[in-house]
Amino acid sequence: MRSAAGYKWPMTQNIYDDPNFFAGYSQLRRSVQGLDGAPEWPALRALLPDVRGLDIVDLGCGYGWFCRWAAGQGARRVLGLDVSARMLQRAAQLDAEAGPQGAAITYTRADLETLALPEAAFGLAYSSLALHYLENLAGLLATVHRALLPGGRLVFSIEHPIYMASRHPDWITDAQGRRSWPVDSYQIEGARRTDWLAPGVVKQHRTVGTLLNSVMHAGFTLAHVEDWGPTAAQLAAQPALRDEQERPMMLLVAARR
Amino acid sequence: MRSAAGYKWPMTQNIYDDPNFFAGYSQLRRSVQGLDGAPEWPALRALLPDVRGLDIVDLGCGYGWFCRWAAGQGARRVLGLDVSARMLQRAAQLDAEAGPQGAAITYTRADLETLALPEAAFGLAYSSLALHYLENLAGLLATVHRALLPGGRLVFSIEHPIYMASRHPDWITDAQGRRSWPVDSYQIEGARRTDWLAPGVVKQHRTVGTLLNSVMHAGFTLAHVEDWGPTAAQLAAQPALRDEQERPMMLLVAARR
Repeated sequence: MRSAAGYKWPMTQNIYDDPNFFAGYSQLRRSVQGLDGAPEWPALRALLPDVRGLDIVDLGCGYGWFCRWAAGQGARRVLGLDVSARMLQRAAQLDAEAGPQGAAITYTRADLETLALPEAAFGLAYSSLALHYLENLAGLLATVHRALLPGGRLVFSIEHPIYMASRHPDWITDAQGRRSWPVDSYQIEGARRTDWLAPGVVKQHRTVGTLLNSVMHAGFTLAHVEDWGPTAAQLAAQPALRDEQERPMMLLVAARR
Repeated sequence: MRSAAGYKWPMTQNIYDDPNFFAGYSQLRRSVQGLDGAPEWPALRALLPDVRGLDIVDLGCGYGWFCRWAAGQGARRVLGLDVSARMLQRAAQLDAEAGPQGAAITYTRADLETLALPEAAFGLAYSSLALHYLENLAGLLATVHRALLPGGRLVFSIEHPIYMASRHPDWITDAQGRRSWPVDSYQIEGARRTDWLAPGVVKQHRTVGTLLNSVMHAGFTLAHVEDWGPTAAQLAAQPALRDEQERPMMLLVAARR
C-alpha cells in the first residue's frame, strides 16, 4: 500500500499498536468511559435498529465497548474486528470484567483493507471512527454489502471531511480576533498526515460526496446523514464541546441494504 | 415570514428585483454566457436524465438558460418558475432571440416558499442555486415530490453549507501566510445575511445532513451527492477557479421519486 505522500507501508498502518499511541488512546475519555464518554453516541445510537436477536459486525471495534453494549441489549452474536492486537486484548479483558454478556462476542484480528466476510450473515454492520483510515473504502463497503442480509443496516461514524481536509487542521484567529476552523485542499483527496497521540498518523481524506457516493455505489440506500454537533444539554454539561458547534467534526451515516 | 434576525419581510425576499442586485447579477459570467458560464454545469448536466420527451419544472429559472437548453434537447414542456418579474421578463426576451425552441417553455412567477404544483405531472424537477434562499425547504420538497411522476428525478445545485456557515465568509490568511476558508457557526442553522451584489441578501444555512435528510424525508431516494470542484481542464482554462479546489462552494444533488 502506498500513501499519497509516496511512503510505502509494509502493511496497513496500524497506529493503534504503536505503544505511544496506545498509551495516549487509553487515556481518552471515550476509552476510559466507553460509549458514555463519546458525545456522539446518543446520536449514533438513535440511528441503530433494534439489535435484539441480530448478528452484528463491528468494523474497528477497539476496546469492544459497542460489542458489549449490543450483547447486553440482546444481540444474538457480535463479531468485533480490529487490526490492533493490543486493542483486542484489552477488549477481552474488559469483557471478562463485565461478566457473562461477553458470551455472545467474538473478537478477530482483521485488516479492514482486505477484509473477507461470509455472505448474507449480518443484520447490522457498525463502525465508529475507523473508516477514515482506509484507502480501500469502496472495497470494504462492497464486502459489507454482501455480508448483510437483505434489509440489513450499515451505521457508522467517520471523521468529517471538513475536520480532515486542511493541511494545518487547527483553529485560527484572524486579525479581528475571530476564531474559525480552516478549510483548504478540500477537493484534493488522499492521505492526510497528522500528529494525534503519536506523530505521523495517516488518514484518508474524501469529500462528503465521494464518501456518500461510495456507500450508494456499493448498493446501499442512504437513510440518514448527520454532521454531528452537541446538544444544548451536552453543551451545558461539557463546555469544552462548544468548539463542536463551530465546525462539523464527525459525520454519522445510516444506510440500508 | 420572519428571518432569524427578526426582520419581518412583507413577502419572500425577492432580492433579484432589487435594481442594484439585478444590475450586478446581469454582469455575472453565468448571466451573460448562460450555462457555459457556470463552471458546475458539466457536472450538473451529468446528473440529468435524458430530457427528451420529459415535462420539466425549473425551480428558480432566472434568465431561463436551463429552460432553453432543455427545450433544445427535446423536452416536451418546460415550466420555468421564478419569484422575480425582472428575471422572467429577461428570460422571455432571450427566448424570443433564441427562436422557435421557446415554444415548449412557459414562465410563471411563483414564490417557492408557498408553491403549488399539479400532482404527478413532471419527469424532472431542476433547480440551480436557488434553494438556499428558502426557509420552507421541507415544504417545497414535499410539493416537488408529489409533482413528480413515479421514477421522476430531482436534480439541484445549492450553495454549500461550508460556503455559507461562517459569520464572516471570506478567505483568511494566518500568521504563517497560509490561506484558508473559515468555518464557524456550522451547527447554528438559520439566516445568514451577506452583502453580495446588494447589501443584506439573506440565505438560509443548513448543515449537509439537514439538507440531505430533508430530501429523504420528502420521500426521495438519494442517487448522487457532489461537493462540486473544478476539473483540471477548467483550472487550466480559468486559473481564478483555483479557490474552488480549496473549499466546497456548491453541493450538487440527484434523487429519485
